Amino acid sequence: MSESLNIAVIPGDGIGPEVIAEAVKVLKKATETTDVHLVLTNYTLGAEHWLETGETLPEETLAALRKHDAILFGAVGAAPGDTRIPSGLIERELLLKLRFSLDHFVNLRPAKLYPGVPSPLAEPGEVDFIVVREGTEGPYVGNGGVLRAGTPHEIATEVSINTAHGVERVVRDAFRRASERTRKHVTLVHKHNVLVFAGHLWRRTVEAVAVEFPDVTHDYLHVDAATIFMTTNPSRFDVIVTDNLFGDILTDQAGAITGGIGLAASGNINMDRTAPSMFEPVHGSAPDIAGQQKADPTAAILSAALLLDHVGLPEAARRVEEAVESDIASRDEMTDPRTTAEIGDAIIAALA
Amino acid sequence: MSESLNIAVIPGDGIGPEVIAEAVKVLKKATETTDVHLVLTNYTLGAEHWLETGETLPEETLAALRKHDAILFGAVGAAPGDTRIPSGLIERELLLKLRFSLDHFVNLRPAKLYPGVPSPLAEPGEVDFIVVREGTEGPYVGNGGVLRAGTPHEIATEVSINTAHGVERVVRDAFRRASERTRKHVTLVHKHNVLVFAGHLWRRTVEAVAVEFPDVTHDYLHVDAATIFMTTNPSRFDVIVTDNLFGDILTDQAGAITGGIGLAASGNINMDRTAPSMFEPVHGSAPDIAGQQKADPTAAILSAALLLDHVGLPEAARRVEEAVESDIASRDEMTDPRTTAEIGDAIIAALA
Ligand SMILES: CC(C)[C@H](C(=O)O)[C@@H](O)C(=O)O
Ligand SMILES: CC(C)[C@H](C(=O)O)[C@@H](O)C(=O)O
Repeated sequence: MSESLNIAVIPGDGIGPEVIAEAVKVLKKATETTDVHLVLTNYTLGAEHWLETGETLPEETLAALRKHDAILFGAVGAAPGDTRIPSGLIERELLLKLRFSLDHFVNLRPAKLYPGVPSPLAEPGEVDFIVVREGTEGPYVGNGGVLRAGTPHEIATEVSINTAHGVERVVRDAFRRASERTRKHVTLVHKHNVLVFAGHLWRRTVEAVAVEFPDVTHDYLHVDAATIFMTTNPSRFDVIVTDNLFGDILTDQAGAITGGIGLAASGNINMDRTAPSMFEPVHGSAPDIAGQQKADPTAAILSAALLLDHVGLPEAARRVEEAVESDIASRDEMTDPRTTAEIGDAIIAALA
Repeated sequence: MSESLNIAVIPGDGIGPEVIAEAVKVLKKATETTDVHLVLTNYTLGAEHWLETGETLPEETLAALRKHDAILFGAVGAAPGDTRIPSGLIERELLLKLRFSLDHFVNLRPAKLYPGVPSPLAEPGEVDFIVVREGTEGPYVGNGGVLRAGTPHEIATEVSINTAHGVERVVRDAFRRASERTRKHVTLVHKHNVLVFAGHLWRRTVEAVAVEFPDVTHDYLHVDAATIFMTTNPSRFDVIVTDNLFGDILTDQAGAITGGIGLAASGNINMDRTAPSMFEPVHGSAPDIAGQQKADPTAAILSAALLLDHVGLPEAARRVEEAVESDIASRDEMTDPRTTAEIGDAIIAALA
């Protein structure tokens, strides 16, 4: 019996296609020995595509994407100086639209300092935590506006929207993930002394959900204090649960302290499985090094491992992670002369 | 001829009184040789005061504070576990109320890695930048609300309010400060690809103000990317200008990489001088070490130097900074066994 696993692939812009090519090779190899039959469908979307067609994410494409079991996403975005593309358009109308439309309420971002990887911290200690970032609300909802634009009396607002429904489901997910880890500890990060309304909803929700998980401990940090601990004592963290914007900030910082976002994977997960989840490296499209085989595909490959986990192939996921880990251990990060494809090939060799 | 310099002193809670005692000693010493006559007036405010009286910041006290030339502020806030005090009450009704009422639109936070101070970064390089954090608007305005509180249908909102008036004055201040520095470079930090409305106001304002300062260069970073550079290459920064919340986050991170917020000073400055400015260490009240002479008064003393600068005594300010610098150079940070008062005394000795 062979079941089909239908994966949509969105390579995107810049280094996206290069790193996704390696992640696809790894997905193929890792599923070879399973009883699933991998079916990959490519979708051409992103800044380049918008320049050619004026399309960001047409409704028909979104409808087609919904039919897949999962989505593997590279990176999108124009080069910083490219004035042909309205700033943030592709990010909002494609990437964020996918996260919001497909109800990716768990933005899962593991942060692990792999043995052998140099950290910019002098004494990083053992870093192995996950950030469960809310993915469908908060300051990311696009709610707000401008009054008297361009005049000395301009007022611009941004509204962060937080719902009991949205907060509770992601907090419960964080506690569930913590309960399956060794240290079983959740840290809520917010700024409730200033953002009182949203902050209290988050705090009350954590207190309520914590009761369901008696073996999981929890604490609280203001976001400013969290950036300090991320610098001075990152090993204090096990599971961080936080809102969309704080999660954005903390996961880039977490990527930096664990050796760079070239290694940081992420999943945009719909835990209710009412729509496909999407897996993407945390890094962007890096147009400056695109097409030169200079990008490290590891983050994309680790994102593929998160995908395998999510679609019910945890053993294949573990094998990919172990292959990555063994490849990383053999690297000299400072002088790794390998191309994107060579790193992919090495990980595939370690998989075999 | 001797002019009076009327300083209001708010020692506050926890370690506040201890560190402010040293800052006051330094202020006295540093002004001894000037022709100003220092007049200090103490104001008892903070969490302890609230517990005793139920007062946070009475209108009469605020009116009295307005009559001073400047305010020296310690730290306020209850111990984290203290359930007698509603969370964030003192921070909002005292500290933020002062910043907003006295129109402290420039929240100035220098970040300098002093020679001899160990950084948690393996290769920090030369770190010497200032953050000009907007202090009177953004997500800090307390605008927002809760609907259907405590029900499964609860909705909590937070509204960030940004005005052309508010953004322009702080951006101009940042460019002016940059124009007086060696590298003359401003970095705007925001998240305009997501927070479009506020983000565009900030960007347009920076472009407009930049024209007035042809010798100052500028660039832009998303806040998530800024936390990466703060970790991997903090010496890239000269002057950061950013909103209230991003500034809160970045300045704690900046404190961490420059050896801890025990050294980080700040000024809440009303550049129009329509009300007194307020100078305070970035650190909090640290109730766990309060009353034990364990706190480092350096941040409070450097805040007093910013105060001297603001009230027109730049030479006295430089002397305090140099005394601090020479004291720091002689420390063994890891094993500094000195009490709060001993550090204060050593800095005063260096001043003499
Ligand atoms: C590209 C941008 C919209 C996105 C975000 O802010 O979420 C990115 O920074 C990320 O973290 O995935
Ligand atoms: C205490 C708190 C309200 C304050 C802030 O968020 O501004 C503090 O973190 C700071 O940075 O001065």
